[in-house]
Amino acid sequence: MVEKRKPLSVKVAIDKVMNYAIEGIGEKLSLDQSYGRFLAEDLVADHPVPPFDRSPYDGFAIRSIDSKNARSDNPIEFEVIDEIGAGSVSEYTLGNMQAIRIMTGAQMPVGSDAVVMLELTTVTKRNKKTYMTLKRSFNEGDNISFKGEDTQAGTVLVKKGTYITPGVVALLATFGYDSVTVSRKPKIGIIATGSELLEIGEPLVPGKIRNSNSYMIMSQVHRSGAEPVYLGKLQDDLDSCYEAVKNALTKVDFLITTGGVSVGDYDFLPDIYNRLGANVLFNKVAMRPGSVTTVAEVNGKLLFGLSGNPSACYVGFELFMRPVVRYYLQSSQPHLKMIQATLGKDFLKPNPFTRFVRGKLTYSDSRLEALPVGLDKSNVVTSLADATVFITLPGGTRGFKAGDQVNALLLEDQDGSEIPWAESFK
Amino acid sequence: MVEKRKPLSVKVAIDKVMNYAIEGIGEKLSLDQSYGRFLAEDLVADHPVPPFDRSPYDGFAIRSIDSKNARSDNPIEFEVIDEIGAGSVSEYTLGNMQAIRIMTGAQMPVGSDAVVMLELTTVTKRNKKTYMTLKRSFNEGDNISFKGEDTQAGTVLVKKGTYITPGVVALLATFGYDSVTVSRKPKIGIIATGSELLEIGEPLVPGKIRNSNSYMIMSQVHRSGAEPVYLGKLQDDLDSCYEAVKNALTKVDFLITTGGVSVGDYDFLPDIYNRLGANVLFNKVAMRPGSVTTVAEVNGKLLFGLSGNPSACYVGFELFMRPVVRYYLQSSQPHLKMIQATLGKDFLKPNPFTRFVRGKLTYSDSRLEALPVGLDKSNVVTSLADATVFITLPGGTRGFKAGDQVNALLLEDQDGSEIPWAESFK
Repeated sequence: MVEKRKPLSVKVAIDKVMNYAIEGIGEKLSLDQSYGRFLAEDLVADHPVPPFDRSPYDGFAIRSIDSKNARSDNPIEFEVIDEIGAGSVSEYTLGNMQAIRIMTGAQMPVGSDAVVMLELTTVTKRNKKTYMTLKRSFNEGDNISFKGEDTQAGTVLVKKGTYITPGVVALLATFGYDSVTVSRKPKIGIIATGSELLEIGEPLVPGKIRNSNSYMIMSQVHRSGAEPVYLGKLQDDLDSCYEAVKNALTKVDFLITTGGVSVGDYDFLPDIYNRLGANVLFNKVAMRPGSVTTVAEVNGKLLFGLSGNPSACYVGFELFMRPVVRYYLQSSQPHLKMIQATLGKDFLKPNPFTRFVRGKLTYSDSRLEALPVGLDKSNVVTSLADATVFITLPGGTRGFKAGDQVNALLLEDQDGSEIPWAESFK
Repeated sequence: MVEKRKPLSVKVAIDKVMNYAIEGIGEKLSLDQSYGRFLAEDLVADHPVPPFDRSPYDGFAIRSIDSKNARSDNPIEFEVIDEIGAGSVSEYTLGNMQAIRIMTGAQMPVGSDAVVMLELTTVTKRNKKTYMTLKRSFNEGDNISFKGEDTQAGTVLVKKGTYITPGVVALLATFGYDSVTVSRKPKIGIIATGSELLEIGEPLVPGKIRNSNSYMIMSQVHRSGAEPVYLGKLQDDLDSCYEAVKNALTKVDFLITTGGVSVGDYDFLPDIYNRLGANVLFNKVAMRPGSVTTVAEVNGKLLFGLSGNPSACYVGFELFMRPVVRYYLQSSQPHLKMIQATLGKDFLKPNPFTRFVRGKLTYSDSRLEALPVGLDKSNVVTSLADATVFITLPGGTRGFKAGDQVNALLLEDQDGSEIPWAESFK
């Protein structure tokens, strides 16, 4: 049966999926395991920064009043009564015309109110005592980093949902998080359908292709921040597929199937959705590639029916599955980041649907150019490997010319964006 | 002893380090483990693409000559003698006025030379036979994807040294790589020095700070593509440090120490280098932060003495250690990617040295703006967490104004660039 399907706009389709997105739970990890995960708690300062008045330089702590009359023609000498490393605290209180040698980061000694940089001093020794001479005056507070001047204790420094970069790890360490609550990775089941699929190690035979989509999606799942669970490859047989899908839904947080969603005679995902009593959110989207992308919901669990075509499968994952993963990870910016760029090459094929064209960004003189890849026979095979963006061309009757302003979605970015940017893709 | 040091330009310093960079060896991994690693072999097409003449559409395979007279006022009828799914091959040879129902991706039947899309046909049944009618003519070769038209067998599709994205995984699968040789991750030892360092879980006490650099660097090591080996925190004691460093060098491919490289009295990395008989490539670089970065070589093994200051430590890693890691992983673009952007905010502090200012990129209307973060007290603490680029401001006597064209180094990018871009940073 050839089914008639009404295409939905990309924006509406994304909104429909996001209605069923759910937030996941957290799990505690030791700090050294946290890189690349997503915070499931706010990062809060457990102490002020700096935690005490301290010296930002190697030099000498002095009482500024003692330096009042120091000039190049009137050097003033101080007695050096102690020296303190970054991890030490002096037991002395500074008196009249006294100085304490102080290292970068060390706490200001009691009685001191300024730091003189080492290179502005001359050090001499006499009668087993050390003296320091200066030729200019200092004011109270000079060269001191004051307690709490950067951050007060209790401040929220990084919000939950944030991707944990090396810089975030540094902050976690600074504020005492030897363990940290990150979002548990959702488990995403992957089922490939199609009797034409060979295992990767099998030799090619006429009429068959290797099952590349499953491996590609497993990698996309990793990149999105989730955990793939490969559930195998099914024959084009309705009963076994139905059982497999039904069974899979009990084991994973989300389920992806690839293939079986076209309107060809052998594509029976629609029948499986029927038998499951699934609520099909849509089975056609006004986009290319990926127009046959189907998303359904069974008892609140999302089921993504991606195309068997690799490019369509890839796009379907990034547009619909990725934001659901990022929402689960509590990100407030779950969608792919969209930027503006200048189209680097003509793309003249008109299309009623929004196109997602594989492309690369080039940067020059602050201008961003988005160059389609895979338009020629010579690079069509490698275009998914070469692409770092999807150039998004709104549907319409005209093509696009080099120099036109276009939008592009960043595939390797961790920031994301807040809104489903697709407002313009009605 | 306060040592005099001559600062090297960033470019010269990077060149000196890269003289000692070495390529690592490969290891075989199963394909599903390969995402995020670096190829240690070229990815070669094991078969032509398409592997056989095939149909790009759902429809009917015909002999084009039979459609010659078809027009809207002269529909032509074909007998449908077989139907083939994507994984099947027809056993029939097409004869006069015959058609075979064909699915997307299926191999062209013998005798056919064109495909008619399903939606251009009308299908009827009579006497247990199926017929298909068309109303326009087709030419030889219409709607066929020909064997090898995209790629010939033996073509190198992705070069070794490339970062393995989901798109690369798809290609590997397509061309039969059920296992793939990736570069072994180099082991990078990390030693923190400084008696002021507390463990992350310890409460703050006067004069002490938590050991955030080690955790930050472990994450940077992961991001660069290497494997961190944390070797612990040492006291400010020369003998134990010397033994630890000497011992560590036997266990890892590269060694990083943090702290102990300033000219303060408690910093004795220089003495350790002496005792090891190390060749110190440089101990001062004309950059800020990170001017005290030291790199030495002992029997061909590189030893990175990074600053104890977190920002300086971070920059030192990205400029000097990262390209060495990427070279080890056989990348031909080991350095951070540099792009041009418009400075989004005044940065008026002049400096004789090249500055690496933590920043963020914003995109609008194809223009890239680089916005410094951490200039204000309010965000100095989170600046490393907020930064996605280093804005590079060449040394000189003037500051920079909003609107100036500047360069920025991308921290989260996997592409990299070929040259040490620092030509301009003499």
